[in-house]
Amino acid sequence: MAFFFIPDYLTIFAPKSERMELLDGKETARIIKAEIAQQVKARKAEGKKIPHLAAILVGTDGGSMTYIANKLKSCEECGFESTLMRYDDSVSEEVLLNKVKQLNEDKSIDGFIVQLPLPAHIDEMKVTLAIDPQKDVDGFHPMNLGKMALNLPGFVSATPSGIIELIRRNNLETAGKKCVIIGRSNIVGMPLSIMLSQNTEPGNCTVTLAHSQTVNLKEICLTADIIIAALGQPNFVTADMVKDGAVIIDVGTTRVQDSTKVSGWKLVGDVKFDEVAPKCSYISPVPGGVGPMTIASLMMNTLKAMDLKGK
Amino acid sequence: MAFFFIPDYLTIFAPKSERMELLDGKETARIIKAEIAQQVKARKAEGKKIPHLAAILVGTDGGSMTYIANKLKSCEECGFESTLMRYDDSVSEEVLLNKVKQLNEDKSIDGFIVQLPLPAHIDEMKVTLAIDPQKDVDGFHPMNLGKMALNLPGFVSATPSGIIELIRRNNLETAGKKCVIIGRSNIVGMPLSIMLSQNTEPGNCTVTLAHSQTVNLKEICLTADIIIAALGQPNFVTADMVKDGAVIIDVGTTRVQDSTKVSGWKLVGDVKFDEVAPKCSYISPVPGGVGPMTIASLMMNTLKAMDLKGK
Repeated sequence: MAFFFIPDYLTIFAPKSERMELLDGKETARIIKAEIAQQVKARKAEGKKIPHLAAILVGTDGGSMTYIANKLKSCEECGFESTLMRYDDSVSEEVLLNKVKQLNEDKSIDGFIVQLPLPAHIDEMKVTLAIDPQKDVDGFHPMNLGKMALNLPGFVSATPSGIIELIRRNNLETAGKKCVIIGRSNIVGMPLSIMLSQNTEPGNCTVTLAHSQTVNLKEICLTADIIIAALGQPNFVTADMVKDGAVIIDVGTTRVQDSTKVSGWKLVGDVKFDEVAPKCSYISPVPGGVGPMTIASLMMNTLKAMDLKGK
Repeated sequence: MAFFFIPDYLTIFAPKSERMELLDGKETARIIKAEIAQQVKARKAEGKKIPHLAAILVGTDGGSMTYIANKLKSCEECGFESTLMRYDDSVSEEVLLNKVKQLNEDKSIDGFIVQLPLPAHIDEMKVTLAIDPQKDVDGFHPMNLGKMALNLPGFVSATPSGIIELIRRNNLETAGKKCVIIGRSNIVGMPLSIMLSQNTEPGNCTVTLAHSQTVNLKEICLTADIIIAALGQPNFVTADMVKDGAVIIDVGTTRVQDSTKVSGWKLVGDVKFDEVAPKCSYISPVPGGVGPMTIASLMMNTLKAMDLKGK
């Protein structure tokens, strides 16, 4: 990364857009969690209930176990109560649906999540639809997606709302900017395209939602002030697709074999960071970008779930 | 419209994209309604229940009265039962909400609509949220919007689904096409942007959602294979914004004073038809384009509501 060896006096005198700044999701998430912890502490001091997140984990998928572990650790950092319910891969849909029903009714639980993916014999959408939208802190329920699209209060799924929060806390300008989102998934690209199009702050972008059937993607990306890569293909976005001074947000987190790591793998984003970063005004790294913000959002949603419950 | 005077032998030998074809919504809607009428007739012959649409109309707004009259007339054409409930402008929110509740519970009613806009003292969203999503044939409830976004069965609001149907029935190619939608309203632009982005047929467009804060709109429109104008500004889209061979769908229906008409007004679209049409491969007129398709969609939704009820 030659960029980092440019002497300081050069970067100081360069126009702002020519100096790349990291969108440090790890640090931003730390600040958010510290703010939440403060609020929880204050509630505790007043003798009030503290937020309680429950999580259902089925099976032993490595990625899922890591995600859940990070979420539970974040609960601890925020001062939340948390409960993990684990099931074997062979658990029946019925048992899972009954658990969901029980959690819906359990007044001590403010919000809960069912870690996806679920084994093939279980209908994920059926499980999602069974969750009380008021406790659906993952924001995957159609009722919450619809409310988000209509700008009504509800839960927005954690990755898009984490990205919005990362944009907000870094004071990035969005109004009137051309934003290209690559990837139309139900949990990232599609909802994010709606959010960034809305008449909100951040928002008011002119959003283009690109996907596997998009023609001339490179040309489209070259017109973008903001590129959000959320397709799950390591190193997909290359320097020739990015205009000078663009903002790049990398949502990709693919596990790629790496024998130099104790774990045997490393997380790789959708953006070829080394070559793209020098062209950007801002870029989020992987790891340490969107990932930690996703978890911070889940914590914000859980706090909100508790606040909503009284209403 | 000089275009119409080009001798036939010229248009015959011109490449396809240089020959403009009308997207005749009136005729397409007529065909759809005739198909529905056939189905209803067959049901009737079998002694089965026929679809029943109810409509609530508040006040005496000219536009609303015309829309409702057209919807009821279409019910008749389709062989549906219909019931109109009218209220004075001064009706309380409570009375309206009670009516909605009653219609939700009334087993003889398959679907119902509350004609918008409502008087200022009534919270439109509160009324929309009170409608049973299973009877919400206007598709305005967040649950139906969310289901549409997740590609789950439900009701899609009538204008976007009418546009999709107009595209489908005219066999327009959409996969990989660049589509610019102008206008981000909750009932047209925003849901349509999701639908045309989905991995469906029609669908798979690369959609850009433009709005009042979009910069360089003309330049963006010039890259579009398909332009959908849904901002409600008469004659907004001009020839210089349209590339040769583009498909233009005009959703605008603004009432503009016209002393030559008995009514004193005429409907004007968002597209300057006379100058844009000669550049297009396909264009929908106003009136007779999207408007009749919207009503045909409402009829399709009502038929679907009855079919869903048994399940």
